[in-house]
Amino acid sequence: MSKNHTGPPPQAPYEYAIVIHGGAGTLQKGQLSPEQELEYKAALDSALIVGKTILQNGGSAQEAVVKTIMILEDSPLFNAGKGAVFTHDGTNELDASIMEGSQLKAGAVGGVSIVKNPITAAQAVMNNSPHVMLSGAGADQFAKEQNLTLVEPSYFFTQKNYDRLQNILKREEDERRKKDGQGFLNTLSEDADSKFGTVGCAALDKNGNLAAGTSTGGMTNKRWDRIGDSPIIGAGTYADNRTVAVSCTGHGEYFIRHAVAHDLSARLMYTNQTIYQAADTIININLKEIGALGGLIAIDKYGNVAMPFNTSCMFRGYANNVKHEVKLFKEDE
Amino acid sequence: MSKNHTGPPPQAPYEYAIVIHGGAGTLQKGQLSPEQELEYKAALDSALIVGKTILQNGGSAQEAVVKTIMILEDSPLFNAGKGAVFTHDGTNELDASIMEGSQLKAGAVGGVSIVKNPITAAQAVMNNSPHVMLSGAGADQFAKEQNLTLVEPSYFFTQKNYDRLQNILKREEDERRKKDGQGFLNTLSEDADSKFGTVGCAALDKNGNLAAGTSTGGMTNKRWDRIGDSPIIGAGTYADNRTVAVSCTGHGEYFIRHAVAHDLSARLMYTNQTIYQAADTIININLKEIGALGGLIAIDKYGNVAMPFNTSCMFRGYANNVKHEVKLFKEDE
Repeated sequence: MSKNHTGPPPQAPYEYAIVIHGGAGTLQKGQLSPEQELEYKAALDSALIVGKTILQNGGSAQEAVVKTIMILEDSPLFNAGKGAVFTHDGTNELDASIMEGSQLKAGAVGGVSIVKNPITAAQAVMNNSPHVMLSGAGADQFAKEQNLTLVEPSYFFTQKNYDRLQNILKREEDERRKKDGQGFLNTLSEDADSKFGTVGCAALDKNGNLAAGTSTGGMTNKRWDRIGDSPIIGAGTYADNRTVAVSCTGHGEYFIRHAVAHDLSARLMYTNQTIYQAADTIININLKEIGALGGLIAIDKYGNVAMPFNTSCMFRGYANNVKHEVKLFKEDE
Repeated sequence: MSKNHTGPPPQAPYEYAIVIHGGAGTLQKGQLSPEQELEYKAALDSALIVGKTILQNGGSAQEAVVKTIMILEDSPLFNAGKGAVFTHDGTNELDASIMEGSQLKAGAVGGVSIVKNPITAAQAVMNNSPHVMLSGAGADQFAKEQNLTLVEPSYFFTQKNYDRLQNILKREEDERRKKDGQGFLNTLSEDADSKFGTVGCAALDKNGNLAAGTSTGGMTNKRWDRIGDSPIIGAGTYADNRTVAVSCTGHGEYFIRHAVAHDLSARLMYTNQTIYQAADTIININLKEIGALGGLIAIDKYGNVAMPFNTSCMFRGYANNVKHEVKLFKEDE
């Protein structure tokens, strides 16, 4: 099968381009103070600048994605790396994945707990192992063998996320009492934004290579070593030089079931849709119809950027050789 | 986007259909004794009959897939359930997934070690949890809470698989000595058929519902809690009533990177290809070109069955209201 790009011409053949997200959620404009808004925007901005500079200087999309995500992972503001949320058992278990579009190489880790920057572990799996996906203690062990920067599990402690878990556990307990202990598994409570803050990045470098990566702490109160869409190639992350690089954020289970990241690539491969039409259809029609909250960021092979989301906010930004901007809410469009 | 079935008409609108595989590999015709061939064929046959009978009696595709795979998991002949291969550390860690095509519900477990039938754990995740994928000890714990049949880890001991691991470990040690301890991770040795024997099933029931499932012990000598394609929705398993139900087997890393199961569905959704053209293109052109060994079994919404593989054998069989057959080697076509 050859690709089938018979649609409208690219709107702009950019030299390079980068796009990032810091999660999609139900936060409304006005719920953040002006100072908080500035803080988030500054964090997104500094990550974007790191990636943009790499691309500007002829660096690879893969490097730009990893270094950009590391900045977001090191910030306590996002649910990834340092700011990862807590599991039901009060631990932090982090997921990340990366893919590059020239050879469709990919790497992912699920449930690491001592790796400072999970995206570097995903990259090491991609480049230095025969595997695509490692998990749990095995993934931690692999990161150690790769001499990646390790931390004590306590590094991931933040008061804000700990309090969030305690609040949810308390509410869960209250609900159980009301029901005389008849709590059902499906009712596992979570606050609306318990999954908020996953980070991701997609980039196109000057050599025409695409790459994408995603990193997350998962959802507050997650149990049974749940794996969401972030470390699943084809669900949370995908990259193919012939089509698109994409990173997703939102209600991960729906993104797995709809293979969202690969579906975007498939639409560009097999239909005449543009990146805008394809991304918008997936997020604002298909997923919205079934109540699946979230969004995605994507760059096509021409450097066109799509950032659709069906929630009230998606922290996001993009830059190329002519433009650079960062936005938080729907109203910022 | 609506589907786009403008291709040739279905070749046969079967009342129901079921297809299974017991792994694709490099075994050549003649390497099995006539008795062994009969043994494998009988095992495949008895699994097929279980599923076929369920469908014949109006049972659901989901039930047929689970019950059929349970038969294959209970046989020591296949690398799934009872016959699961050993990890590098001498344990057995099993993966499974299932998906149903009416609502695109899905469930998966990665690295369970005390669940007799991992496919039942995948089904429980799909039907009784808010999640799609659970892993490791958490998945075992979930299975326990769901009152699934548990076993001691020693249940998965088979001399044949244990010897296989010892042979690989010995070869690995020999190679390390030759290199004065300079062994590199990428050289992790494996025998050609170390991944052989994954099982899978896809079914179409009388109500037009599709379902697919896959179950495996992974690859002999796997390390770092490696997760292959079998428990990855979109890679090893996918089902969508609008297109196809599919289960893959082979070199899992390639199947993840190419999102093989979802790609088959996308081709039926977005192009005019038939199930035969689409499945053959993926397995015998795209994957073959890059040296990715394996195959898949699939049923489209009309009950047409495709079973392409680019290896010398894929243990396989299918049945519908008019036909029933089981085959092992390429030459059996």
